[in-house]
Amino acid sequence: MNAKPKAVTLLSGGLDSTTTAAIAKSLGFDIYAMTFDYGQRHDIEIKSAQLVAEELGVAEHIITQIDMRAFKGSALTSEIAVPKGRSADEMGDGIPITYVPARNTVFLSFALAWTETLQANDIFIGVNAVDYSGYPDCRPEFINSFEQMGRLATRAGVEGTQQLTIHAPLIQLTKAEIIRKGLDLGVDYSITNSCYDPDSDGQACGQCDACFLRLKGFEDNGISDTAPYQQDARAVI
Amino acid sequence: MNAKPKAVTLLSGGLDSTTTAAIAKSLGFDIYAMTFDYGQRHDIEIKSAQLVAEELGVAEHIITQIDMRAFKGSALTSEIAVPKGRSADEMGDGIPITYVPARNTVFLSFALAWTETLQANDIFIGVNAVDYSGYPDCRPEFINSFEQMGRLATRAGVEGTQQLTIHAPLIQLTKAEIIRKGLDLGVDYSITNSCYDPDSDGQACGQCDACFLRLKGFEDNGISDTAPYQQDARAVI
Repeated sequence: MNAKPKAVTLLSGGLDSTTTAAIAKSLGFDIYAMTFDYGQRHDIEIKSAQLVAEELGVAEHIITQIDMRAFKGSALTSEIAVPKGRSADEMGDGIPITYVPARNTVFLSFALAWTETLQANDIFIGVNAVDYSGYPDCRPEFINSFEQMGRLATRAGVEGTQQLTIHAPLIQLTKAEIIRKGLDLGVDYSITNSCYDPDSDGQACGQCDACFLRLKGFEDNGISDTAPYQQDARAVI
Repeated sequence: MNAKPKAVTLLSGGLDSTTTAAIAKSLGFDIYAMTFDYGQRHDIEIKSAQLVAEELGVAEHIITQIDMRAFKGSALTSEIAVPKGRSADEMGDGIPITYVPARNTVFLSFALAWTETLQANDIFIGVNAVDYSGYPDCRPEFINSFEQMGRLATRAGVEGTQQLTIHAPLIQLTKAEIIRKGLDLGVDYSITNSCYDPDSDGQACGQCDACFLRLKGFEDNGISDTAPYQQDARAVI
């Protein structure tokens, strides 16, 4: 008999969501991993999520298709070029071009539905307000507000049998602190992928904002990233 | 040049959402209609939405596919039988079997994304707290909470350029009042469909909760429903 509580965990297969899932596991939850297929330019993200789900021994993993007709004009979903070679200062200026309208609201809504289906109380999401301070839906006030809304949205909310908690354990950590936490928990980062613009073999570009922040996070820990990068492509930090 | 404000309007093709769209139009909005295809047993709902969208002259109509892997155990999405022949008293008891986990949260999240894409401020939804008091996500406190969350979730929320409003103009009306309002606005209810279990020609069963409430709403107005019902199937009110 398995008496562990269930947690729906958003898992993209990137560094942050993988660390978040490892934290949820370390807290004693059975992981119900949820990955979204929303027309990413490459399916490497989904393959990474599948590898991570297997490595972590999740209870169940579902890949949910997201119809993107309502979302337009993001670099992650259209032909707008992903910015390359930017410094941390340049990234910090305004809302990034890689922002997708209301993305985390849609992701958390599906997580809320699955939580209700599973009669679970907990959702884990790997949002971070430090490195990506420009994303509206990565801010603590957004997460708190979604939690309040979610407590009113469901059957259990009406019946008073559920106390929804949205866990965002990385929200105030630097990338270096996230990586340190994950390494302490035994996360294998070689199977994760954070790149906005990987090649067809899934090798990271080493130059986009996500690669830059990731490489810097490993550098700050004095270690090398074990994930595959295109030859000689790693940004010089 | 068209200076009308834009409103994303959730449109199922049923009586409530059609009336809501007509109200939005009467308030001077250009209608951006959003219909969800979430594995309904019959596609009559989508056909009705298309007819209504055409009749109302909407600016744009998108049909968004919803992946139902996270939703299980609802009569509207699985093989559980739709209840028939229940009285209003029986319906009022607890959360209906036709409740879909977190459905309106998911629907409103997609509407929020489209609102942001369109740089609009307004969403219309035809929820009603009177006849379906058992649905958690039809309550005014849920709608208000979603609005608060939505104001924090988007680019415009951060930049202070948007004041999201979620309009739920039917929320405190009886079915009879909704129908009266729609008739005053010239709504053609013959092309709408509210039935949970229509036949393959789209004719309403006349016996499910939705048919019962609809028929009673017309009866209370002293008129006959012009929508097609299966022969001799109309519930006696």
